[in-house]
Amino acid sequence: MKSITLLQPQEIVFGSGSLKHLLEDRNIEKSKRILFLVAPPLLEAVSSIVDKLNSKGKEVYFVEYKFLGEPTFSQFNTLLEENKSSNPDCVIGVGGGSVLDCAKLLAALIKNGQKLEDVVGIGLLNERAINLICIPTTSGTGSEVSPNAILLNEESQAKSGIISPYLVPDACYLDPDLTISLRPKLTAETGIDALSHCIEAYTNKFAHPTVDVYALKGIELIAKNIERAYLNGNDIEARSALLLGSMYGGLCLGPVNTSAVHALSYGLGGKFHVPHGLSNAILMPEVLRFNLSANPKRHAEVARALGITLKGTDEEVALAGIESIEAISKACHIPQRLTEIGVDEDVIPELADIAMKVTRLLKNNPKEVTRADAITIYKKLL
Amino acid sequence: MKSITLLQPQEIVFGSGSLKHLLEDRNIEKSKRILFLVAPPLLEAVSSIVDKLNSKGKEVYFVEYKFLGEPTFSQFNTLLEENKSSNPDCVIGVGGGSVLDCAKLLAALIKNGQKLEDVVGIGLLNERAINLICIPTTSGTGSEVSPNAILLNEESQAKSGIISPYLVPDACYLDPDLTISLRPKLTAETGIDALSHCIEAYTNKFAHPTVDVYALKGIELIAKNIERAYLNGNDIEARSALLLGSMYGGLCLGPVNTSAVHALSYGLGGKFHVPHGLSNAILMPEVLRFNLSANPKRHAEVARALGITLKGTDEEVALAGIESIEAISKACHIPQRLTEIGVDEDVIPELADIAMKVTRLLKNNPKEVTRADAITIYKKLL
Repeated sequence: MKSITLLQPQEIVFGSGSLKHLLEDRNIEKSKRILFLVAPPLLEAVSSIVDKLNSKGKEVYFVEYKFLGEPTFSQFNTLLEENKSSNPDCVIGVGGGSVLDCAKLLAALIKNGQKLEDVVGIGLLNERAINLICIPTTSGTGSEVSPNAILLNEESQAKSGIISPYLVPDACYLDPDLTISLRPKLTAETGIDALSHCIEAYTNKFAHPTVDVYALKGIELIAKNIERAYLNGNDIEARSALLLGSMYGGLCLGPVNTSAVHALSYGLGGKFHVPHGLSNAILMPEVLRFNLSANPKRHAEVARALGITLKGTDEEVALAGIESIEAISKACHIPQRLTEIGVDEDVIPELADIAMKVTRLLKNNPKEVTRADAITIYKKLL
Repeated sequence: MKSITLLQPQEIVFGSGSLKHLLEDRNIEKSKRILFLVAPPLLEAVSSIVDKLNSKGKEVYFVEYKFLGEPTFSQFNTLLEENKSSNPDCVIGVGGGSVLDCAKLLAALIKNGQKLEDVVGIGLLNERAINLICIPTTSGTGSEVSPNAILLNEESQAKSGIISPYLVPDACYLDPDLTISLRPKLTAETGIDALSHCIEAYTNKFAHPTVDVYALKGIELIAKNIERAYLNGNDIEARSALLLGSMYGGLCLGPVNTSAVHALSYGLGGKFHVPHGLSNAILMPEVLRFNLSANPKRHAEVARALGITLKGTDEEVALAGIESIEAISKACHIPQRLTEIGVDEDVIPELADIAMKVTRLLKNNPKEVTRADAITIYKKLL
């Protein structure tokens, strides 16, 4: 078993009602000034906690997260500059992936001589001097447990990853109650994103037994529960399973990470502002069909975790698995083709160019993806 | 899904050769003075690392761990006093469970106004001011990832637990190469201890889906590999699987913990100095037979993870699982009866008295254990 580094928060509080335990958190107890970065729909959910922290004598800086879509470098830098004077010793992010990514970067850069532009890439952050707590309100990103943050570089129109162990939160609180108000469309798209984290880790060139256990469990939980949560947002059992599956997807991101689905999705997000989960949902089946021959056994095991009981060759089972992903996606009314979301043939060369630059993820793919392969995949999805 | 707190090191480096990555560890990089607490058989394995740290300008305080058996309060206090002047900013423990437990407590108490006697129990430590890294060299204790440390109170002759999130290391390095030299007898006994952590978590009154995934995987890995590692210590594949299974057992300890097997084993360890793994190995099958009726389904699932493929009722499958544990134990030449290790009928009342005091673990058992029940279980094992 080759050596691997697993990164995760030292404290993971999971389950319905776990948000209330935030008040007993060790990182908060030792903090004086706390910066809360909160997505607007969650303002009410955290207001009573903020009141209690105030009454405990903590100085709470409440920052409403206002960016739409993927946050850009300049948006983040504005956020950073506006909040430096609050001089927090703990940052708490409450929201979806973009909010958590900004909270993670805020905590890392607010007392750091480094600039955002200097730390884009892998392992370039020198430190994180203050504490960091993440509270996800979607079941998708896995950002609450991962060392990754993604921003949009507005100049190159490309998404850029900041990857560092210092971006792994000290603690995270995963409370499925906070995901109940998430709209069906977002529930489905973010859920498929989480599913892709697990599948891309399990079929990854650098797959590892210590990560496989998370990947398979995540696939099982998400496949079983995504449609339930889509149809009935109040189904707390399905919401809990989805949030746990999403966390397992997040635990795959640091040590193994994603591969061609995410790489081919970069241009759709960066250039055409297609939501991250949606672009992954459209791309995943076709990329898996492309990858299958590189490791039929692993793709069949993914299918088993998806719930496929068919007896047959690995190829047959794997294909049935890919079809079940399409079925899930259709049941949740997720578009299946690029043309449905306004992306036409003429931009495909540009999408392929952008994808080819995401070598950080393409190198993980079980099969080499050439520019011509990428174009073929995009074309099949027109 | 009820709320649960999972504690684990923020960084887990796993796999053959992972020890060499210790030199790049973030905690070490920022430390000036490092205290190494090392079990004597490992002195050579870490000497080259110590040399390299010295040449990097780190002050390394090398402390050979010399206690035999379970460390006592006074032994630990001596260790603490002797090393306070080294004023380390990082403690690294290298060894089996006792060494790691002492390293964890050293890191927590060396710059803390609290005394050992004040922190015995759950959640009484106020802080840990310095960094802590654990490197296990047995596959059993799980201490490298858990919030627990166990010492022997020489006055009461009882084992005492110190349980605190501050005892969870910042990082751990699990290198199966370091377990190769472990003798077959210890390989088997510590392996059964790890197996009991997983089984007692899965059949626990407070079992939780987030912990079940570790427990079942740990049971599977240990059951498949313990005899292989016992018969051929150089079988690195089996050693790796056993170490991973043991880590999963350790991840069960914080959030769910063990139950009656460990509680009934306390007197054997504290009073009669029976090695921890050995006493658990002798007790486990009979305690599981006692517990089975409280949750046949969960006990059958344990049996499935142990490799039982029998078709039958949950009870039948569960019983086959218990027999397979006995078979593993016998194949590793572990004694099956108390009389084989010199524990006779006349001490049973005293063993039962000690067990009844371990309410911290007994409360987790799926079925109430009265003093009379405990006596019956011990008597069956004469």
